[in-house]
Amino acid sequence: MPELAYLNGTIMPIENAAVPVEDRGYNFGDAVYEYVASYNGRLFYLEPHLDRLEHSMAALAFPPLPREKIRTAIETLFAEAAIDRAGIYIQISRGVAPRDHAFPADAELQFLMILRRVHEKPAVLRDKGAAAITVTDIRWGRCDIKTVQLLPNVLAKQQALEAGAYDAIFVAETGEVREGTSSNLFIIKDQSLITHPLTQRILPGITRMIILDICKAAGLSVEEAYFDKAALYAADEVFMSGTITEVLPITRIDDKPIGDGAVGPVTRRLNRDLLDRIGG
Amino acid sequence: MPELAYLNGTIMPIENAAVPVEDRGYNFGDAVYEYVASYNGRLFYLEPHLDRLEHSMAALAFPPLPREKIRTAIETLFAEAAIDRAGIYIQISRGVAPRDHAFPADAELQFLMILRRVHEKPAVLRDKGAAAITVTDIRWGRCDIKTVQLLPNVLAKQQALEAGAYDAIFVAETGEVREGTSSNLFIIKDQSLITHPLTQRILPGITRMIILDICKAAGLSVEEAYFDKAALYAADEVFMSGTITEVLPITRIDDKPIGDGAVGPVTRRLNRDLLDRIGG
Repeated sequence: MPELAYLNGTIMPIENAAVPVEDRGYNFGDAVYEYVASYNGRLFYLEPHLDRLEHSMAALAFPPLPREKIRTAIETLFAEAAIDRAGIYIQISRGVAPRDHAFPADAELQFLMILRRVHEKPAVLRDKGAAAITVTDIRWGRCDIKTVQLLPNVLAKQQALEAGAYDAIFVAETGEVREGTSSNLFIIKDQSLITHPLTQRILPGITRMIILDICKAAGLSVEEAYFDKAALYAADEVFMSGTITEVLPITRIDDKPIGDGAVGPVTRRLNRDLLDRIGG
Repeated sequence: MPELAYLNGTIMPIENAAVPVEDRGYNFGDAVYEYVASYNGRLFYLEPHLDRLEHSMAALAFPPLPREKIRTAIETLFAEAAIDRAGIYIQISRGVAPRDHAFPADAELQFLMILRRVHEKPAVLRDKGAAAITVTDIRWGRCDIKTVQLLPNVLAKQQALEAGAYDAIFVAETGEVREGTSSNLFIIKDQSLITHPLTQRILPGITRMIILDICKAAGLSVEEAYFDKAALYAADEVFMSGTITEVLPITRIDDKPIGDGAVGPVTRRLNRDLLDRIGG
């Protein structure tokens, strides 16, 4: 049950996988990615991840890669690794060519996957909730495309850790609260959920979509609307959502408790409903 | 006189140089770069490039790399390649570690260089001037750090080429005209130059700095100030500046001629003065 890499059709130990130094993913961040997880030996919501990957590639005018080929590659790698709780990182770059901003005439897409065991978030974060800080959103203007333009996310995450928090929440200069460094964000006020609308400024999260669906099925009110830092601080509950994040309660923001500072009932319920869908 | 790569102390053919797939430069764009050129076998303005590289690394909290070590590596590669007119691309990433946004505890910087012959810009661009389009600046908020967060630059350059132009000029949503996709921008009105001030929104170009110095020596008036698209269109002359760009006249923007549509006298003079400093 080894952790493995896949590169352009070949499966190998991760430490053997290397890309040419003129891969445009390396020199320009000219690459898209996805992250798919399995539970109990089954890949969860694979098709929506493939949808989004196609969308990202099209948005950057990458030549298309047949969906069937991507799916088969994922399934082959997953079977070979035989790890029940796996995270598969998929990165596709525009290809290898002497450095020049313009799209290369004849480069071929580089198709990489790295499969590793999932390291679960510490249980205490789920039981007691996590702390977050807010930071100014200085990311580029197309966060709806899942690209490796992630340096601002890296810097914000590190800033949060150094402040003793779990993560950072991006807030636009114009005041809108966006999302976490690798997750979407929901607030709950008077039993109603609010989350940032799907614009070019946030990632269209798969878990976000599942939560919207869960709320609909459960008759919970959800609004996709802008909200500001005052609304964030004044929320009854706050949580982040993502593939590994799942539903993660945020109980402290900028050193202020959210609600009574404990994990709230709506967050607990949504987490339970998500785990039900996962089949855990 | 081969084109060569250098990777962490070893010189090799470019096609042999590869980085591990978990290099943070590849997965996060967590890397800085420089580009140094030589003329007639001499590296031009190497020290200011080393200054900027140090600044970029410090801004991202990279562990320091001794300047002497970087300089020696550059000089060794340059001597080995023995190409009189060379461009040396230098990229330093935070290192290799299993994918996690937070800074890795024990990764070592990856130090890459790629030395290639310089392909000069077509002479017609310098004689007749080049065309540009304007695009909305959707880059991240720290363009003063020379990182590989370059996908918006890639997309803008490609958009320009597909529109039949040479390059794109980034204009902020708030109206300020910033710079080109890989160069700074100057406008000239009534014999006076204006260029965007050094903020976090533009690259502190080495050639930009040299031009400011040339202007001072020549008694030409230069203002580092904001200007908008109306001022850009109404300029007498416009040019871009950069290491390979040198002083490149822009004589058409968004299909409108700049001034009388020919290369202007101030641009010609600055180009001549720059070539004098280069010793060409």
